[in-house]
Amino acid sequence: MSQPPYYVGLDVGGSTMKAGAVDDAGHRLSSVSLPTEAERGQDLGLRRMCEAIRRAAAEAGLAMSQVAAVGVATPGTMDIPAGVMLDPFNLKPWQNVPVRAFVQRELALPTAFQNDANAAAHGEFWVGASRGAHSMVLFTLGTGIGGGIVLGELVVEGEHSHGAELGHMKIEMTNPRRCGCGGYGCLEAYASATAVAHRTLEALAGYSGTSALRALVEQKGAEALTCRDVFTAAEAGDALAERLVEETAYYLAVGATNAMHVIDPDVVVFAGGMIAAGEPFLERIRGHVGRLAFPVPAARTHIRYAQLGTDAGFIGAAACARQLHRRTCQGTA
Amino acid sequence: MSQPPYYVGLDVGGSTMKAGAVDDAGHRLSSVSLPTEAERGQDLGLRRMCEAIRRAAAEAGLAMSQVAAVGVATPGTMDIPAGVMLDPFNLKPWQNVPVRAFVQRELALPTAFQNDANAAAHGEFWVGASRGAHSMVLFTLGTGIGGGIVLGELVVEGEHSHGAELGHMKIEMTNPRRCGCGGYGCLEAYASATAVAHRTLEALAGYSGTSALRALVEQKGAEALTCRDVFTAAEAGDALAERLVEETAYYLAVGATNAMHVIDPDVVVFAGGMIAAGEPFLERIRGHVGRLAFPVPAARTHIRYAQLGTDAGFIGAAACARQLHRRTCQGTA
Repeated sequence: MSQPPYYVGLDVGGSTMKAGAVDDAGHRLSSVSLPTEAERGQDLGLRRMCEAIRRAAAEAGLAMSQVAAVGVATPGTMDIPAGVMLDPFNLKPWQNVPVRAFVQRELALPTAFQNDANAAAHGEFWVGASRGAHSMVLFTLGTGIGGGIVLGELVVEGEHSHGAELGHMKIEMTNPRRCGCGGYGCLEAYASATAVAHRTLEALAGYSGTSALRALVEQKGAEALTCRDVFTAAEAGDALAERLVEETAYYLAVGATNAMHVIDPDVVVFAGGMIAAGEPFLERIRGHVGRLAFPVPAARTHIRYAQLGTDAGFIGAAACARQLHRRTCQGTA
Repeated sequence: MSQPPYYVGLDVGGSTMKAGAVDDAGHRLSSVSLPTEAERGQDLGLRRMCEAIRRAAAEAGLAMSQVAAVGVATPGTMDIPAGVMLDPFNLKPWQNVPVRAFVQRELALPTAFQNDANAAAHGEFWVGASRGAHSMVLFTLGTGIGGGIVLGELVVEGEHSHGAELGHMKIEMTNPRRCGCGGYGCLEAYASATAVAHRTLEALAGYSGTSALRALVEQKGAEALTCRDVFTAAEAGDALAERLVEETAYYLAVGATNAMHVIDPDVVVFAGGMIAAGEPFLERIRGHVGRLAFPVPAARTHIRYAQLGTDAGFIGAAACARQLHRRTCQGTA
C-alpha cells in the first residue's frame, strides 16, 4: 500500500537519466530510464528530464496533479541554491543549465535541485543503509569519488555548492598522486575505481612475479583493465591483486577516518561498483579504521555498504522533493 | 548598554579556568580567572567551577537569579550529551566528572556543556571572526590542534562527541609523523605549535647553514625552543626559520582545504598563539589554499584569524547557554 503524498525524483547521469515515483514512506513505485544524449544539447536534455519525470509518474499510475513535488539530481559543478548546472564534465557541451527553473515552470510543481552524490546520500539516509541514523557520510566509488553528508535534517551542500567533495581530501604530501581534478594527493587519486586500475598498471610495470593481471593486460590492452578485474584476480588468489585490494581498503579507511574525525557520524556508507567486492573487502576497511581512528568512534561508527544501488539518486532526489514539500507546508501552516 | 537575558560562560583549561558574564548581544560584562589546580581533585574542581561562575555574575553586577543559563566548556575526551568529562589529558587525575549535573544542581540554572574548541568556534561564530556568517570551521593551534564547526544553528559535536577533531585528519601516508594522539600522519603532528618546535630541532640536526635557531637551542636547551622563537627568527630573516614557517603555512592550508572540501564553509578561522605571526603568515596560508582547493571555494571562502583571544571559550560557552535557553523557551512557548 503506497502512502501519499507522492514525489518524483530524477537522477541525471552522463549516459542515462533515471526517474522514479516514490511515496511518503520512501517506497519506489516506478522507475524509468532514458538516454541523456548530452551531445544533442541542453534544450533537448531539459525537455527529456521533464519527459522522464512525467513517465515515472504515469508508470506509477499517478496523474501529475497527484505529485506533491519533484526533485532533480545532477552531476558536476553547480550552483545548488540557484538550481543551475554550471559546467558538468560528463555532460558536454551543457553549460549554465537552469534545471530547476525550467522543470518547475514546465511541470508547474515545486522542484528541488541537488548534487547527485548528495542526493544519493539523502536516499540512503532516508530508506537505505542509514535508515534510522542521526547522521551519515557517504562515499561513492566510481570513475571518481563523490560524497554526501547528512546531519539530521541537513544535507551538507556547502556555502559554495562544494560540500562533501570527499574524494578531494588531501591524504598525501610527500609523494602525492595526480588527481583527475588537476590537483595532487586527493583520496580519489588513490581509491576510485579508475585509480585502482591505474595503480595496477603501475604495479605490474615494477613487478617481476607471476600475476594473472599481466596476461589480462596483454590480452585486452592496458586501457581496458578495470577495477573489477583486479578484485576478481584477488579473489582467485593472485598475490599482486591482493596487495592492490588491501592497499585500496587502506586508502578508503584513511578517507573514512578523516570523515569520522571531522563529522563523527553514526554511519559511514560506501557506494558504487566497487562494493560488489562484498563483505570481506568491507571487513578490511573496518580493520584499518580500527587502527587509524580514535577508539570511541572506531568502535561505534557503523561502516556499511549502500543498499539502494543505482536507484539511490532518484530516491534521494525524491527525498529532497519531500523535504521541500514539508518545509513549504510548515511554512504556510 | 547591556541587553538581557544574561548568561555566564566558563572555559576550564589545564592551568586556569576563566568565566565571564555575557549579554544577549554577546557583549562581555565581566571576566574572572581562577587556578584549575586539577591535582587537588575533581570535587574541588567542580566547586571552583561554580565559584568562578558566581564571581563572574557578581563582577557584572548580576544576581544569580538574573542569569538565564550557564555554559561550561572543558577539554579532553567527553560525553557531551551526558555532560561528563571522561579522561581529560590535561586535568589529571580527573575522571568521569559529571560537570553538567553538578553545576546545574549547585546553581539551580539550566546548564549547557560543550567541548572547549567547539565552544570557541561558537563564540567566534556569534560575535567574533565569523559574525554574520552562515557557517565556519575553526582550527585552534596550540600544543595540539583542536577544531570546531558551526553550521547555522548547529555546532557539530558528532555522534560520539568526536566532531571537528580537525587536528587528526590524516594528511600523509608515505612518511607520516607520529602524533601526540598515538597515531600517524595527523595534521597536528605537522602544524601545531609543538610540532613546529619539533620540526625545527629535526631540521637543525640536518642543516649545515647558519641559523640563529642553533645558537638559541644551545643557549636555552632544545626542550625550551618554542614555536614563537621560530616565527621570530623567520621575521628577522633567518633562512631555516623562514622555510619552517613556510612549510607550516602549507600544512595548515592542507588542513583548511580538507575542511573546505568536506564542509565548504563561509569562513575558516585560525586561533591560538601562532596567530601572533600576523597577516603575512595568513597570506601564506591563503596562497597555498588558492593552489590546493577547488577554484570556487578557494576564491570565496574567507580565511581569517580569530578575534576573541582567550575569551572565545567562555563567550562560546555563553553562546551554548543562550542556545539552550532559547530552545527551552521555544519548547515551552
